Amino acid sequence: MESIERYSHNELENFTKKVFEAIGCNKEEASTAAHVLIQADLRGVDSHGVARLSGYIRLWKKNRINPKPNIQIVHETPSTAVIDGDEGLGLVVAQYAIKLAQEKAKMAGTGWVAVRNSNHYGIAAAHSMLTLENDMIGFSMTNASPLVSPTFAKARLLGTNPISVAIPAGKEKPVVIDMATTTVANGKLEVLQRKNAEMPEGWAQTQEGETTTDPSVLKKGGAMLPLGGDRVHGSHKGYCLGALVDILSAVLPGANYGPWVPPFVAFLNPPEDPVGKGIGHFLGAMRIDAFQPAEDFKCHMDNWIKTFKSAEAIDPKQKILVPGEPEREIEKERQKKGIPLLPAVVTDLLQMAEEFDIKFIQPISKVTTATVEK
Amino acid sequence: MESIERYSHNELENFTKKVFEAIGCNKEEASTAAHVLIQADLRGVDSHGVARLSGYIRLWKKNRINPKPNIQIVHETPSTAVIDGDEGLGLVVAQYAIKLAQEKAKMAGTGWVAVRNSNHYGIAAAHSMLTLENDMIGFSMTNASPLVSPTFAKARLLGTNPISVAIPAGKEKPVVIDMATTTVANGKLEVLQRKNAEMPEGWAQTQEGETTTDPSVLKKGGAMLPLGGDRVHGSHKGYCLGALVDILSAVLPGANYGPWVPPFVAFLNPPEDPVGKGIGHFLGAMRIDAFQPAEDFKCHMDNWIKTFKSAEAIDPKQKILVPGEPEREIEKERQKKGIPLLPAVVTDLLQMAEEFDIKFIQPISKVTTATVEK
Repeated sequence: MESIERYSHNELENFTKKVFEAIGCNKEEASTAAHVLIQADLRGVDSHGVARLSGYIRLWKKNRINPKPNIQIVHETPSTAVIDGDEGLGLVVAQYAIKLAQEKAKMAGTGWVAVRNSNHYGIAAAHSMLTLENDMIGFSMTNASPLVSPTFAKARLLGTNPISVAIPAGKEKPVVIDMATTTVANGKLEVLQRKNAEMPEGWAQTQEGETTTDPSVLKKGGAMLPLGGDRVHGSHKGYCLGALVDILSAVLPGANYGPWVPPFVAFLNPPEDPVGKGIGHFLGAMRIDAFQPAEDFKCHMDNWIKTFKSAEAIDPKQKILVPGEPEREIEKERQKKGIPLLPAVVTDLLQMAEEFDIKFIQPISKVTTATVEK
Repeated sequence: MESIERYSHNELENFTKKVFEAIGCNKEEASTAAHVLIQADLRGVDSHGVARLSGYIRLWKKNRINPKPNIQIVHETPSTAVIDGDEGLGLVVAQYAIKLAQEKAKMAGTGWVAVRNSNHYGIAAAHSMLTLENDMIGFSMTNASPLVSPTFAKARLLGTNPISVAIPAGKEKPVVIDMATTTVANGKLEVLQRKNAEMPEGWAQTQEGETTTDPSVLKKGGAMLPLGGDRVHGSHKGYCLGALVDILSAVLPGANYGPWVPPFVAFLNPPEDPVGKGIGHFLGAMRIDAFQPAEDFKCHMDNWIKTFKSAEAIDPKQKILVPGEPEREIEKERQKKGIPLLPAVVTDLLQMAEEFDIKFIQPISKVTTATVEK
């Protein structure tokens, strides 16, 4: 069995920060970008963490990421704004947007910021969760490169278009929803490919729209499927959710939508006939006390959480989970034991260390594959 | 084959209005309630239309619906409000709420109204769609009687908790999402029961949490399943969506949530230890020009819609649909040909006609069952 090294999340974040500084980000933005990226690794969303760092660098080399963006408010009302991310890192632009949404919410009760001309923003929850300490409910969504077919269609017209909502609680931990609007995230297909394993039906279809259990089908022109999987199980609803995210994140602020969303991978060129600027996000903040006293709300949230967690399980060995709980458990473990990185990811990071003349970090322990990939 | 009568939607609406007047609603509110109810029949959501009228009447007889509510704003900020529906018809209270949300949006860019102490509000889209003519995006969600089990659980802790979003377009018809957060709406199980047919797996589970194809399983203590159907196909995401609707609609305004939501059926009593008041809704309106000029947005929406509709289909006989299209097609047909009512529904309406001394209406044609139930 392959052995995998674990790295301290603080050291990994510091290394990542230096890489972003090396491509020209200022200290503050490099620090923000690194922090957002590492949150993915901490929460167990390995596909969106440092594994993706070299992808951002390749986009920068193709002049598709601007390390010194002049982020601007294009239009605003008391509770809304549109911002232009100036081709900056989505990791940075979205943090700017959710902070602006909170400023709006302080005055108007809620704040909603639609973003155009941005890039991949990491995990959705890294932005929505920023509202929690201010007793606000945070919303975060983004469109993404087209990989998903609408119900009945062959073509890839939507991204995995995630939705995150972060809701404060009192003594209990907050409820944090963070979900792709597909049956599964793309990362799960990659895990099965590495294992040479089959994929359940309902996750993806072939180029011709047939059901398949081949996890490498996306490379062969296939497509991921909207949440629901097939029409009988409600894939048209997953398609509705993906469409909603696309429209709010991109049609609303004037970013590219549907098949025009520029690909994250640098070896594929963006469409030559863009309908907007860059990719789009939609961030929101609702002040709880714009509805009722925050303490009352949080007390009821504690009751809500306890009620759901204490429901009788079908399998007595299985706990009933509350949204955000699995990620929090992984985070707790990884903060202590370090973040496990696949050898290919370490090689990637070492190459960047060499290229930018940054000292790479030492692993803190080794584990085996089986305990890492779920 | 059973023969079914079709009725003019105008005449049916007028009859419904008279029934609401007979229980004490004023003319304006009776008219609003009837209009919302008939929209369900027009759009093909037969379970939420006049078939449910006698249910509202039974609740009124048990003093669980107040026909003369004093709807009040409990708390507000520039972009938010909480209203107390005073146990009124949800059909009326939610229309009040979405109008208030639009008033807020005119001033603040967006408006968000959470509602407590309400009742069943009909179809979600009847409220969200009210924003379309004002160039706003409308949001509508409600919690409902607990029928749905969270992933891994036996107990029914959530309602079918629908989400509707209505998005204006230019020359194209608007995009209207209206979806239960379960694999299917409860009405589909009822259709299969009447046909004595089996149900696909992934729609519902037995009292013990086992998968089943028995569409009458809810009467035997079973539960509906969140969108996704099972864990492998993302039922935890459907559970997240149902939870989100429950929290925004009920925990936020101080209504009953989770297992405390009062049942719609009058023969079941509400829980004796309520955690809030009545059931809850969450309505929202976003002015498009709070983000960008409405004409530009609508032009891009037309392009979005045309792009999706013209995607290549897997089965050449199947069209790619845009959210709201199937309901609009049914509406077009039913406006012309009338609303088909099952004999049991007609009997129900005749009983109310007799009880309240209202003249019942004549059918305009007959059809056979097969063409009605999909």
